[in-house]
Amino acid sequence: MPESFSSLNEFISVLSNLPAPDPEAYSAAQARNGMLTKPPGALGRLEEIAIWYAGWRGEAAPKITAPQVLVFAGNHGVVAQGVSAFPAEVTAQMVGNFAANGAAINQLCEVAGAKLEVIAINLDTPTQDFTIEPAMDKSEFLAALNIGWEAVDPNCDLLVVGEMGIGNTTSAAAIATALFGGSASNWTGRGTGVTDEGLIRKEDVINKAVTRQAVSSGLEVLRCFGGRELVAMAGAITRARRERIPVILDGFICTAAAACLHKTASGSLDHCVAGHVSAESAHGRILDILDKPPLLNLGMRLGEGSGATLAINILKSALACHSGMATFDQAGVSQEK
Amino acid sequence: MPESFSSLNEFISVLSNLPAPDPEAYSAAQARNGMLTKPPGALGRLEEIAIWYAGWRGEAAPKITAPQVLVFAGNHGVVAQGVSAFPAEVTAQMVGNFAANGAAINQLCEVAGAKLEVIAINLDTPTQDFTIEPAMDKSEFLAALNIGWEAVDPNCDLLVVGEMGIGNTTSAAAIATALFGGSASNWTGRGTGVTDEGLIRKEDVINKAVTRQAVSSGLEVLRCFGGRELVAMAGAITRARRERIPVILDGFICTAAAACLHKTASGSLDHCVAGHVSAESAHGRILDILDKPPLLNLGMRLGEGSGATLAINILKSALACHSGMATFDQAGVSQEK
Repeated sequence: MPESFSSLNEFISVLSNLPAPDPEAYSAAQARNGMLTKPPGALGRLEEIAIWYAGWRGEAAPKITAPQVLVFAGNHGVVAQGVSAFPAEVTAQMVGNFAANGAAINQLCEVAGAKLEVIAINLDTPTQDFTIEPAMDKSEFLAALNIGWEAVDPNCDLLVVGEMGIGNTTSAAAIATALFGGSASNWTGRGTGVTDEGLIRKEDVINKAVTRQAVSSGLEVLRCFGGRELVAMAGAITRARRERIPVILDGFICTAAAACLHKTASGSLDHCVAGHVSAESAHGRILDILDKPPLLNLGMRLGEGSGATLAINILKSALACHSGMATFDQAGVSQEK
Repeated sequence: MPESFSSLNEFISVLSNLPAPDPEAYSAAQARNGMLTKPPGALGRLEEIAIWYAGWRGEAAPKITAPQVLVFAGNHGVVAQGVSAFPAEVTAQMVGNFAANGAAINQLCEVAGAKLEVIAINLDTPTQDFTIEPAMDKSEFLAALNIGWEAVDPNCDLLVVGEMGIGNTTSAAAIATALFGGSASNWTGRGTGVTDEGLIRKEDVINKAVTRQAVSSGLEVLRCFGGRELVAMAGAITRARRERIPVILDGFICTAAAACLHKTASGSLDHCVAGHVSAESAHGRILDILDKPPLLNLGMRLGEGSGATLAINILKSALACHSGMATFDQAGVSQEK
């Protein structure tokens, strides 16, 4: 396992040689599921998730005891275009709020029993304005990938990656437009509360940027339109795959970053499940493309990893049932007539 | 607060004089929600749930620390009509499985941090076959209501009611047909896995029963077509209302029992939220009638209170955010420009 990457080609090589789930553990989990004291299929998606998770962990009956939530923060040069309703200093202020235990993600981690780590990346040096030039040069991009890669605790058994970055719905919408095509209006929403006029400006900014920088490879799209927090999320998701740690994807921004990996290496998100679908409507469209039906649909649009962290207890519950329930034989319960 | 009821009229009188949420706590919770360090509405339904819960508890910033899960079990005379894929002895066997910590609900309660109590009601004496006569006479009905009423811990701060009873999807479908009309086919599903042929038989049985016993008042429908576990759930839901303890409704059977209260006293389920929508398709139709959008939609159809218990952590998370987050002023975070 590389500790970090000294070139982008090394990362691409990892991305081209990702591990698969363990077929024996997967089959053993399927068999176990069929013997548990419930009618077949009665736990719905919990059953499917438990078997999927077991395959990745290489155990027929694992539990989830050590989830990690990583929140990366970054600032965006594109805010100079007036795309956000909040001032850029809110990124650092919210990082302070995370440290003081005052944000939503702090409370959600407590209920989920998850270890939270917040990593602010060069907040005093925003990315370049991507309407003019690539958001990051290659060394900045690699540095952010490494931050994400290194942040994953190899002893965690479930990973959530989240973000904080004023302006980053614009970054995510530009990524989606570059990856999947069409007009920016298909991929742009109000983020944290922009007005009608602001929305039109945001779409114009994105259309201009995507026309100016005509890139299409997943990693180049991430470098040209991403923020450091998006790149770090992609690095962490890839590290988790190498460690066979399942990942819960969060909202629009997290999923846009993940979609860049998918574009470069199809199947690279097979260890990921969608925690929720955001109120930011482009999120659902990306999840459809990725074929990732969300676990939750509660109209959330906060970021910070909040929707995915809320889903941790769904996964914990799925595995607690799968690995803790008695079989028909053990319990002496009669099966179908 | 009555300890139990010596006549049905006493229960009806309670049902006609139910408490409302505290308007001051509700307003204070709304105001608090607007000051928390997140864009307005960014936590979606979590915000609405937190305010609703605060109103019922009469506190601006409560947390959920003591949820109770009550699972009632009963047997059904209507199984003589061949409506279930499992033999009736499975009810008692599953009660044994609950006691041995082997069922899904045991594992789900552990993840939810909920206290589980299982109450088996006269399993050796099934209700009467409701294709021939009322499932319960008035004294049997009152006894089951009292069991539910007495089972609620007045010190819990959230209640889930669930059930186990071979044949009880037939009971629930008969209730829905009697309450809401139309053919039984609108309200009948496969329960725990009946065949095509079994489904037609189940619908015939229900149509025959509902034609034979033409009752329409909510409590009479519950007495004539319910099982003891459904009646106990209705009793417990009503007791929770009197104690101002919010309730998470579970699946089709729980919701059918609750709908009888709604039919008799509109507004009597205002302290209830729908935990999930079951794969049993009639459940979603009842939730639409009750105007209760479900929190989860994971294709579950197990009963035992499982879907509602899975939703406990959603409510805990909503209140943890509402009551634990810093305000903009406290955190020194700038608001919208």
